[in-house]
Amino acid sequence: MHADVERLAFLLGTWTGEGRGEYPTISGFAYREEIRFSHNGKPFVGYVQRTWALDDGRPLHGESGYLRPVGRTGELEYVLVHPTGLAEVGGGRVLGEHVSLAARATRTPTALAVEQVERDIEVVSDVLRYELRMSMESVPLTRHLVGELHRTEEP
Amino acid sequence: MHADVERLAFLLGTWTGEGRGEYPTISGFAYREEIRFSHNGKPFVGYVQRTWALDDGRPLHGESGYLRPVGRTGELEYVLVHPTGLAEVGGGRVLGEHVSLAARATRTPTALAVEQVERDIEVVSDVLRYELRMSMESVPLTRHLVGELHRTEEP
Repeated sequence: MHADVERLAFLLGTWTGEGRGEYPTISGFAYREEIRFSHNGKPFVGYVQRTWALDDGRPLHGESGYLRPVGRTGELEYVLVHPTGLAEVGGGRVLGEHVSLAARATRTPTALAVEQVERDIEVVSDVLRYELRMSMESVPLTRHLVGELHRTEEP
Repeated sequence: MHADVERLAFLLGTWTGEGRGEYPTISGFAYREEIRFSHNGKPFVGYVQRTWALDDGRPLHGESGYLRPVGRTGELEYVLVHPTGLAEVGGGRVLGEHVSLAARATRTPTALAVEQVERDIEVVSDVLRYELRMSMESVPLTRHLVGELHRTEEP
């Protein structure tokens, strides 16, 4: 394991669970989710996520990106893309087994007008909980997603 | 298959092959590469790529993102991230079995100062060839990567 990644080792592996979404502009929804944090010896952690509707199993969302520790300071950078045409380019911190991230969204012309995204990820033994907040042109920073997953595969 | 994705169907599957890199700021290098273009019924194509050094097999690079057809016009949008802290947010066109893409790079504070990226991808039956050009603060748009891969797995 690259020394810069050691502070993020608690994330590594495959996580499965459920989440729910809400936002002022849409109806609430619930989903099944799989997240994988991976490492290949280089100074970053890969992130891939997919969700499926709880009711009929249809694919809902997916996203993928990378967490980049800034040396061993606990500071992070991250880049992440959504198939809806959004890129999150931002940073944050890891403190114990809690990661907090904030990004300004860059987007393609037809993407939803998301402006900022904030993410909190916390692990307690083999349970991962997260919350995602986002702002749009017309909506201030508001909680959008929460999820709880269990580690189902070690790195 | 989502109707908007039909023009990109020729990309789908797993491709393996080799490529080489050059750039005014670095020594030339050669790599083994795997690319996967995937589709899940939604109006985008997922893209994941990894490379390994030809000499000792160590992991070199990876990137992941999404191609978003703009309806059935042949216009595309795309978002893609590199573990080095770069995001490409751009667009392009598909014409026959040729995809051309251009993006401005958004980047984290410690990332290399890449400014623009252009990509051409062409498929002739089961052979995929690509060229990637990029500019940096100090280097105009210059060819960086070329690769030739064969389809090793159908979608």
